[in-house]
Amino acid sequence: MRERIDLAEKLSRFSELWSPRIVGRLNDYKITVVKVKGDFVWHTHADTDEFFLVVKGRLTISLRDRRVELAEGQLFVVPRGVEHCPSAEEECHVLLIEPAGTPNTGDAGGDRTAAEREL
Amino acid sequence: MRERIDLAEKLSRFSELWSPRIVGRLNDYKITVVKVKGDFVWHTHADTDEFFLVVKGRLTISLRDRRVELAEGQLFVVPRGVEHCPSAEEECHVLLIEPAGTPNTGDAGGDRTAAEREL
Repeated sequence: MRERIDLAEKLSRFSELWSPRIVGRLNDYKITVVKVKGDFVWHTHADTDEFFLVVKGRLTISLRDRRVELAEGQLFVVPRGVEHCPSAEEECHVLLIEPAGTPNTGDAGGDRTAAEREL
Repeated sequence: MRERIDLAEKLSRFSELWSPRIVGRLNDYKITVVKVKGDFVWHTHADTDEFFLVVKGRLTISLRDRRVELAEGQLFVVPRGVEHCPSAEEECHVLLIEPAGTPNTGDAGGDRTAAEREL
């Protein structure tokens, strides 16, 4: 049975950075929360858009031609095929929505690729 | 070009209740914000789940066997095929995500069916 999802409560259950945790499903999409700080890796998702909503703190999504700065209550959808690099000066908590199976590092791969993990 | 979406700013631009406004797209999904107060109509979406995140206030999603109470920062995904009726005692602001073309009244139709509308 599906239950209410409290984002702050879910985020209180782990501390690892750049390690998205699945908290729900929307059809074949995964709903994840992630804690971030510092710079991630430049990457692209060729087949899907990616939804970012800042729950706490401030997030920068760098694109090759501009930077998108997001505060709490602000969201951005990175279009498919657009290279991007998320970063945050201080710890920031983000709600992500994208198709299940989408790797966090997109086409870049490497050691920052996180396994899909239910919270 | 896609821009940052500030939920509070988007919600400040209209006052009509139960009239979702499209503020963004995620692949073939619409991202909408809606202001609600009072009771909506019981309805079902046979073909899709529906994502509700409370941005401000308190929302009740009644199901036939239980009630899901959501406060700010809490979300619920109504499973496809599950009859539901949203309601709010006081004005409440909600972020909705569901496939484009999904009618707000699902299978119920009637005069509370809203046209899809970009903000």
